[in-house]
Amino acid sequence: MQALKDKIVREGIVLNENVLKVDSFLNHRVDPELMAGIGKAFAERFVDSSVDLVLTLESSGIAPALMAALELKVPLIFARKQLSLTMKEDLHVEPVYSFTKQVQSQVAVSRKFLSEGQDVLIIDDFLAHGEAAFGMARIVEAAGSRVAGIGIVIEKAFQNGHAKLAEAGYRVESLARVASLADHRVTFAE
Amino acid sequence: MQALKDKIVREGIVLNENVLKVDSFLNHRVDPELMAGIGKAFAERFVDSSVDLVLTLESSGIAPALMAALELKVPLIFARKQLSLTMKEDLHVEPVYSFTKQVQSQVAVSRKFLSEGQDVLIIDDFLAHGEAAFGMARIVEAAGSRVAGIGIVIEKAFQNGHAKLAEAGYRVESLARVASLADHRVTFAE
Repeated sequence: MQALKDKIVREGIVLNENVLKVDSFLNHRVDPELMAGIGKAFAERFVDSSVDLVLTLESSGIAPALMAALELKVPLIFARKQLSLTMKEDLHVEPVYSFTKQVQSQVAVSRKFLSEGQDVLIIDDFLAHGEAAFGMARIVEAAGSRVAGIGIVIEKAFQNGHAKLAEAGYRVESLARVASLADHRVTFAE
Repeated sequence: MQALKDKIVREGIVLNENVLKVDSFLNHRVDPELMAGIGKAFAERFVDSSVDLVLTLESSGIAPALMAALELKVPLIFARKQLSLTMKEDLHVEPVYSFTKQVQSQVAVSRKFLSEGQDVLIIDDFLAHGEAAFGMARIVEAAGSRVAGIGIVIEKAFQNGHAKLAEAGYRVESLARVASLADHRVTFAE
Protein backbone atom coordinates (compact mmCIF):
# COMPACT_ATOMS: atom_id res chain seq x y z
CA MET A 1 0.00 0.00 0.00
CA GLN A 2 1.92 2.98 -1.33
CA ALA A 3 0.40 5.70 0.90
CA LEU A 4 1.38 3.69 3.97
CA LYS A 5 4.94 3.07 2.73
CA ASP A 6 5.32 6.78 1.92
CA LYS A 7 4.14 7.66 5.43
CA ILE A 8 6.59 5.17 6.99
CA VAL A 9 9.48 6.67 5.00
CA ARG A 10 8.48 10.26 5.87
CA GLU A 11 7.57 9.83 9.54
CA GLY A 12 8.84 6.46 10.79
CA ILE A 13 11.79 6.59 13.18
CA VAL A 14 14.23 3.67 13.11
CA LEU A 15 15.30 3.31 16.74
CA ASN A 16 17.53 0.31 16.05
CA GLU A 17 17.72 -2.70 13.71
CA ASN A 18 14.59 -4.19 15.26
CA VAL A 19 12.41 -1.26 16.29
CA LEU A 20 10.48 1.05 13.96
CA LYS A 21 8.62 3.82 15.75
CA VAL A 22 5.43 4.97 14.03
CA ASP A 23 3.76 6.84 16.86
CA SER A 24 3.14 9.90 14.68
CA PHE A 25 0.38 8.13 12.71
CA LEU A 26 -0.44 4.72 14.20
CA ASN A 27 0.49 4.06 17.85
CA HIS A 28 -0.12 7.34 19.64
CA ARG A 29 -1.09 10.07 17.20
CA VAL A 30 -3.34 8.55 14.53
CA ASP A 31 -3.92 9.75 10.95
CA PRO A 32 -7.67 9.09 10.39
CA GLU A 33 -7.52 9.42 6.56
CA LEU A 34 -4.67 6.92 6.43
CA MET A 35 -6.64 4.56 8.69
CA ALA A 36 -9.62 4.84 6.31
CA GLY A 37 -7.31 3.90 3.42
CA ILE A 38 -5.93 0.98 5.46
CA GLY A 39 -9.48 -0.23 6.12
CA LYS A 40 -10.24 -0.16 2.39
CA ALA A 41 -6.97 -1.97 1.59
CA PHE A 42 -7.76 -4.79 4.05
CA ALA A 43 -11.31 -5.07 2.68
CA GLU A 44 -9.93 -5.40 -0.88
CA ARG A 45 -7.43 -8.08 0.12
CA PHE A 46 -10.05 -10.18 1.90
CA VAL A 47 -12.97 -9.46 -0.46
CA ASP A 48 -13.11 -13.14 -1.50
CA SER A 49 -13.08 -14.44 2.09
CA SER A 50 -16.11 -14.97 4.25
CA VAL A 51 -15.69 -12.67 7.26
CA ASP A 52 -18.22 -12.50 10.12
CA LEU A 53 -16.17 -10.32 12.44
CA VAL A 54 -12.83 -8.60 12.87
CA LEU A 55 -10.68 -9.34 15.94
CA THR A 56 -7.79 -7.16 17.13
CA LEU A 57 -5.83 -6.42 20.30
CA GLU A 58 -6.07 -3.19 22.29
CA SER A 59 -4.87 -0.46 21.88
CA SER A 60 -2.91 0.13 18.68
CA GLY A 61 -4.87 -2.40 16.63
CA ILE A 62 -8.19 -0.68 17.22
CA ALA A 63 -7.96 2.16 14.68
CA PRO A 64 -6.97 0.09 11.61
CA ALA A 65 -9.26 -2.79 12.64
CA LEU A 66 -12.26 -0.47 13.10
CA MET A 67 -11.85 0.93 9.59
CA ALA A 68 -11.53 -2.60 8.15
CA ALA A 69 -14.68 -3.70 10.03
CA LEU A 70 -16.55 -0.63 8.77
CA GLU A 71 -15.61 -1.45 5.17
CA LEU A 72 -16.49 -5.14 5.58
CA LYS A 73 -19.76 -4.24 7.37
CA VAL A 74 -19.07 -6.60 10.29
CA PRO A 75 -18.53 -6.04 14.04
CA LEU A 76 -15.12 -5.51 15.60
CA ILE A 77 -13.95 -7.14 18.83
CA PHE A 78 -10.88 -5.81 20.56
CA ALA A 79 -9.30 -8.40 22.82
CA ARG A 80 -8.46 -6.94 26.23
CA LYS A 81 -5.08 -7.00 27.90
CA GLN A 82 -6.44 -5.13 30.90
CA LEU A 83 -9.53 -6.87 32.21
CA SER A 84 -12.34 -4.43 32.89
CA LEU A 85 -14.19 -4.73 36.20
CA THR A 86 -17.41 -5.34 34.27
CA MET A 87 -15.90 -8.36 32.45
CA LYS A 88 -17.25 -10.91 34.85
CA GLU A 89 -18.58 -13.42 32.35
CA ASP A 90 -16.90 -16.41 30.74
CA LEU A 91 -13.74 -15.45 28.92
CA HIS A 92 -11.48 -17.03 26.34
CA VAL A 93 -8.02 -16.23 27.73
CA GLU A 94 -4.65 -16.90 26.07
CA PRO A 95 -1.12 -15.92 27.12
CA VAL A 96 0.74 -13.72 24.61
CA TYR A 97 4.45 -13.09 24.94
CA SER A 98 5.84 -9.73 23.83
CA PHE A 99 9.46 -9.87 22.64
CA THR A 100 9.60 -6.06 22.59
CA LYS A 101 8.40 -5.67 26.17
CA GLN A 102 9.74 -9.06 27.35
CA VAL A 103 6.58 -9.74 29.30
CA GLN A 104 3.81 -12.28 28.98
CA SER A 105 0.30 -10.88 29.21
CA GLN A 106 -3.13 -12.46 29.28
CA VAL A 107 -5.39 -11.59 26.38
CA ALA A 108 -9.13 -12.08 26.81
CA VAL A 109 -12.29 -12.16 24.71
CA SER A 110 -15.80 -12.65 26.10
CA ARG A 111 -17.34 -15.98 25.12
CA LYS A 112 -20.68 -14.33 24.44
CA PHE A 113 -19.23 -12.35 21.51
CA LEU A 114 -17.08 -15.12 20.02
CA SER A 115 -19.07 -18.30 19.65
CA GLU A 116 -18.56 -21.24 17.32
CA GLY A 117 -18.87 -21.30 13.56
CA GLN A 118 -17.68 -17.77 12.82
CA ASP A 119 -15.15 -16.64 10.21
CA VAL A 120 -12.82 -14.22 11.96
CA LEU A 121 -10.40 -11.79 10.32
CA ILE A 122 -7.52 -11.00 12.70
CA ILE A 123 -5.99 -7.51 12.29
CA ASP A 124 -2.92 -6.15 14.07
CA ASP A 125 -0.68 -3.11 13.73
CA PHE A 126 2.64 -5.00 13.69
CA LEU A 127 3.82 -8.51 12.88
CA ALA A 128 7.26 -9.58 14.13
CA HIS A 129 7.52 -13.02 15.76
CA GLY A 130 3.78 -13.65 15.39
CA GLU A 131 3.06 -14.05 19.10
CA ALA A 132 0.02 -11.75 19.17
CA ALA A 133 -1.45 -13.19 15.96
CA PHE A 134 -0.99 -16.78 17.20
CA GLY A 135 -2.59 -15.81 20.52
CA MET A 136 -5.64 -14.39 18.78
CA ALA A 137 -5.80 -17.42 16.45
CA ARG A 138 -5.79 -19.76 19.48
CA ILE A 139 -8.69 -17.78 20.97
CA VAL A 140 -10.66 -18.03 17.68
CA GLU A 141 -10.07 -21.78 17.38
CA ALA A 142 -10.73 -22.51 21.05
CA ALA A 143 -14.14 -20.89 20.44
CA GLY A 144 -14.82 -23.34 17.61
CA SER A 145 -14.46 -20.65 14.98
CA ARG A 146 -12.17 -20.26 11.98
CA VAL A 147 -9.40 -17.77 11.16
CA ALA A 148 -10.44 -16.25 7.81
CA GLY A 149 -7.09 -14.50 7.51
CA ILE A 150 -4.58 -12.28 9.25
CA GLY A 151 -4.23 -8.65 8.15
CA ILE A 152 -1.13 -6.73 9.27
CA VAL A 153 -0.43 -3.02 8.87
CA ILE A 154 3.39 -3.24 9.13
CA GLU A 155 5.27 -6.52 8.90
CA LYS A 156 8.89 -6.87 9.94
CA ALA A 157 9.66 -9.32 7.15
CA PHE A 158 13.15 -9.91 8.58
CA GLN A 159 11.60 -11.69 11.55
CA ASN A 160 9.91 -15.07 11.36
CA GLY A 161 6.26 -14.36 12.22
CA HIS A 162 4.92 -14.46 8.66
CA ALA A 163 6.70 -17.74 7.86
CA LYS A 164 5.46 -19.41 11.06
CA LEU A 165 1.86 -18.25 10.48
CA ALA A 166 1.98 -19.41 6.83
CA GLU A 167 3.38 -22.81 7.91
CA ALA A 168 0.47 -23.12 10.33
CA GLY A 169 -1.88 -22.64 7.38
CA TYR A 170 -2.95 -19.03 7.88
CA ARG A 171 -3.25 -16.53 5.06
CA VAL A 172 -1.30 -13.39 6.01
CA GLU A 173 -1.75 -10.09 4.16
CA SER A 174 0.60 -7.26 5.18
CA LEU A 175 0.09 -3.76 3.81
CA ALA A 176 3.76 -2.81 4.24
CA ARG A 177 6.57 -5.39 4.46
CA VAL A 178 9.79 -4.04 5.93
CA ALA A 179 12.82 -6.06 4.75
CA SER A 180 15.39 -4.27 6.88
CA LEU A 181 15.92 -1.51 9.42
CA ALA A 182 19.71 -1.62 9.09
CA ASP A 183 21.73 1.61 8.88
CA HIS A 184 18.79 3.55 10.35
CA ARG A 185 16.91 3.17 7.07
CA VAL A 186 13.64 1.49 6.18
CA THR A 187 13.92 -0.89 3.21
CA PHE A 188 10.75 -2.54 1.95
CA ALA A 189 10.53 -6.17 0.84
CA GLU A 190 8.57 -5.40 -2.33
CA MET B 1 -28.53 10.84 19.50
CA GLN B 2 -31.46 8.49 19.03
CA ALA B 3 -29.61 5.54 17.41
CA LEU B 4 -27.25 5.47 20.41
CA LYS B 5 -30.09 5.63 22.95
CA ASP B 6 -31.91 2.83 21.14
CA LYS B 7 -28.76 0.72 21.22
CA ILE B 8 -28.28 1.38 24.96
CA VAL B 9 -31.88 0.34 25.66
CA ARG B 10 -31.60 -2.80 23.51
CA GLU B 11 -28.12 -3.99 24.50
CA GLY B 12 -26.98 -2.13 27.61
CA ILE B 13 -26.82 -4.16 30.81
CA VAL B 14 -27.50 -2.36 34.09
CA LEU B 15 -25.19 -4.10 36.57
CA ASN B 16 -26.20 -1.86 39.46
CA GLU B 17 -27.33 1.74 40.11
CA ASN B 18 -23.93 3.07 39.04
CA VAL B 19 -22.68 0.71 36.35
CA LEU B 20 -24.00 0.42 32.79
CA LYS B 21 -22.29 -2.25 30.73
CA VAL B 22 -22.10 -1.53 26.99
CA ASP B 23 -19.45 -4.01 25.95
CA SER B 24 -21.60 -5.34 23.10
CA PHE B 25 -21.10 -2.18 21.02
CA LEU B 26 -18.55 0.15 22.64
CA ASN B 27 -16.07 -1.29 25.17
CA HIS B 28 -15.20 -4.73 23.81
CA ARG B 29 -17.29 -5.57 20.75
CA VAL B 30 -17.66 -2.42 18.66
CA ASP B 31 -20.42 -1.53 16.18
CA PRO B 32 -18.56 0.29 13.37
CA GLU B 33 -21.70 1.81 11.77
CA LEU B 34 -22.76 3.22 15.14
CA MET B 35 -19.25 4.62 15.66
CA ALA B 36 -19.47 6.33 12.25
CA GLY B 37 -22.77 7.89 13.33
CA ILE B 38 -21.21 8.97 16.64
CA GLY B 39 -18.34 10.60 14.73
CA LYS B 40 -20.82 12.55 12.60
CA ALA B 41 -22.83 13.57 15.69
CA PHE B 42 -19.71 14.96 17.43
CA ALA B 43 -18.67 16.81 14.26
CA GLU B 44 -22.13 18.42 14.04
CA ARG B 45 -22.07 19.50 17.68
CA PHE B 46 -18.61 21.09 17.38
CA VAL B 47 -18.97 22.42 13.82
CA ASP B 48 -18.73 26.04 15.08
CA SER B 49 -15.61 25.37 17.17
CA SER B 50 -12.06 25.58 15.95
CA VAL B 51 -10.58 22.09 16.38
CA ASP B 52 -6.96 21.23 15.51
CA LEU B 53 -6.91 17.76 16.98
CA VAL B 54 -8.95 15.21 18.91
CA LEU B 55 -7.60 13.76 22.18
CA THR B 56 -8.91 10.61 23.85
CA LEU B 57 -7.76 7.95 26.31
CA GLU B 58 -6.96 4.35 25.38
CA SER B 59 -8.67 1.94 24.80
CA SER B 60 -12.43 2.49 24.75
CA GLY B 61 -12.24 6.11 23.62
CA ILE B 62 -10.33 5.27 20.44
CA ALA B 63 -13.21 4.07 18.23
CA PRO B 64 -15.60 7.01 18.76
CA ALA B 65 -12.72 9.54 18.78
CA LEU B 66 -11.27 8.17 15.53
CA MET B 67 -14.59 8.60 13.74
CA ALA B 68 -14.96 12.15 15.11
CA ALA B 69 -11.41 13.00 13.96
CA LEU B 70 -12.14 11.53 10.52
CA GLU B 71 -15.25 13.73 10.19
CA LEU B 72 -13.44 16.83 11.45
CA LYS B 73 -10.41 16.06 9.22
CA VAL B 74 -7.92 16.47 12.06
CA PRO B 75 -5.46 14.05 13.73
CA LEU B 76 -6.34 11.94 16.75
CA ILE B 77 -4.07 11.42 19.75
CA PHE B 78 -4.84 8.66 22.20
CA ALA B 79 -3.30 9.29 25.59
CA ARG B 80 -1.52 6.20 26.91
CA LYS B 81 -2.15 4.55 30.24
CA GLN B 82 0.47 1.92 29.50
CA LEU B 83 3.71 3.55 28.49
CA SER B 84 5.19 1.93 25.41
CA LEU B 85 8.91 1.09 25.45
CA THR B 86 9.40 3.37 22.46
CA MET B 87 7.93 6.38 24.35
CA LYS B 88 11.26 7.72 25.52
CA GLU B 89 10.75 11.37 24.69
CA ASP B 90 9.35 14.18 26.80
CA LEU B 91 5.86 13.43 28.02
CA HIS B 92 2.97 15.37 29.49
CA VAL B 93 1.86 13.11 32.36
CA GLU B 94 -1.17 13.57 34.61
CA PRO B 95 -2.63 11.31 37.31
CA VAL B 96 -6.21 10.19 36.67
CA TYR B 97 -8.25 8.52 39.40
CA SER B 98 -10.79 5.87 38.40
CA PHE B 99 -13.74 5.61 40.80
CA THR B 100 -14.86 2.41 39.06
CA LYS B 101 -11.51 0.67 39.40
CA GLN B 102 -10.46 2.59 42.54
CA VAL B 103 -6.96 3.06 41.21
CA GLN B 104 -4.95 6.06 40.14
CA SER B 105 -3.14 5.72 36.85
CA GLN B 106 -0.72 7.92 34.96
CA VAL B 107 -1.92 9.19 31.60
CA ALA B 108 0.69 10.39 29.10
CA VAL B 109 0.87 12.32 25.84
CA SER B 110 4.10 13.00 23.93
CA ARG B 111 5.08 16.66 23.95
CA LYS B 112 6.04 16.52 20.29
CA PHE B 113 2.42 15.88 19.27
CA LEU B 114 0.77 18.33 21.67
CA SER B 115 2.47 21.70 21.52
CA GLU B 116 1.15 25.13 22.41
CA GLY B 117 -1.57 27.09 20.66
CA GLN B 118 -3.77 24.18 19.56
CA ASP B 119 -7.54 23.82 19.93
CA VAL B 120 -8.17 20.33 21.28
CA LEU B 121 -11.47 18.44 21.30
CA ILE B 122 -11.48 15.88 24.12
CA ILE B 123 -13.58 12.75 23.45
CA ASP B 124 -14.33 9.95 25.91
CA ASP B 125 -16.68 6.98 26.04
CA PHE B 126 -18.10 7.68 29.53
CA LEU B 127 -18.47 10.69 31.81
CA ALA B 128 -19.19 10.06 35.49
CA HIS B 129 -17.14 12.08 38.01
CA GLY B 130 -15.14 13.77 35.26
CA GLU B 131 -11.73 12.51 36.40
CA ALA B 132 -10.56 11.36 32.96
CA ALA B 133 -11.83 14.51 31.22
CA PHE B 134 -10.17 16.78 33.81
CA GLY B 135 -6.93 14.79 33.45
CA MET B 136 -6.93 15.26 29.68
CA ALA B 137 -7.84 18.96 30.07
CA ARG B 138 -4.87 19.43 32.45
CA ILE B 139 -2.58 17.84 29.84
CA VAL B 140 -3.93 20.17 27.11
CA GLU B 141 -3.50 23.28 29.25
CA ALA B 142 -0.08 22.29 30.59
CA ALA B 143 0.96 22.14 26.92
CA GLY B 144 -0.19 25.73 26.43
CA SER B 145 -3.16 24.66 24.33
CA ARG B 146 -6.91 25.19 24.70
CA VAL B 147 -9.79 22.76 25.31
CA ALA B 148 -12.20 23.40 22.41
CA GLY B 149 -14.81 21.20 24.05
CA ILE B 150 -15.49 17.83 25.62
CA GLY B 151 -17.51 15.23 23.71
CA ILE B 152 -18.92 12.28 25.63
CA VAL B 153 -20.63 9.18 24.22
CA ILE B 154 -22.55 8.22 27.40
CA GLU B 155 -22.92 10.58 30.35
CA LYS B 156 -24.08 9.39 33.75
CA ALA B 157 -26.04 12.58 34.38
CA PHE B 158 -26.78 11.45 37.96
CA GLN B 159 -23.12 11.91 38.83
CA ASN B 160 -21.38 15.27 39.08
CA GLY B 161 -18.84 15.24 36.26
CA HIS B 162 -20.80 17.39 33.82
CA ALA B 163 -21.57 20.06 36.46
CA LYS B 164 -17.93 20.21 37.59
CA LEU B 165 -16.63 20.51 34.02
CA ALA B 166 -19.21 23.21 33.18
CA GLU B 167 -18.26 25.14 36.34
CA ALA B 168 -14.64 24.99 35.22
CA GLY B 169 -15.71 26.65 31.97
CA TYR B 170 -15.68 23.68 29.62
CA ARG B 171 -18.37 23.04 27.03
CA VAL B 172 -19.58 19.46 27.39
CA GLU B 173 -21.63 17.70 24.70
CA SER B 174 -22.95 14.25 25.57
CA LEU B 175 -24.66 12.09 22.93
CA ALA B 176 -26.67 10.12 25.50
CA ARG B 177 -27.41 11.42 29.01
CA VAL B 178 -28.47 8.71 31.46
CA ALA B 179 -30.57 10.16 34.29
CA SER B 180 -30.88 6.96 36.29
CA LEU B 181 -29.93 3.29 36.40
CA ALA B 182 -32.33 2.53 39.27
CA ASP B 183 -34.51 -0.60 39.18
CA HIS B 184 -32.20 -2.15 36.55
CA ARG B 185 -33.59 0.26 33.95
CA VAL B 186 -31.95 2.97 31.88
CA THR B 187 -33.79 6.31 32.05
CA PHE B 188 -32.52 9.14 29.87
CA ALA B 189 -32.28 12.77 30.99
CA GLU B 190 -33.82 14.20 27.83
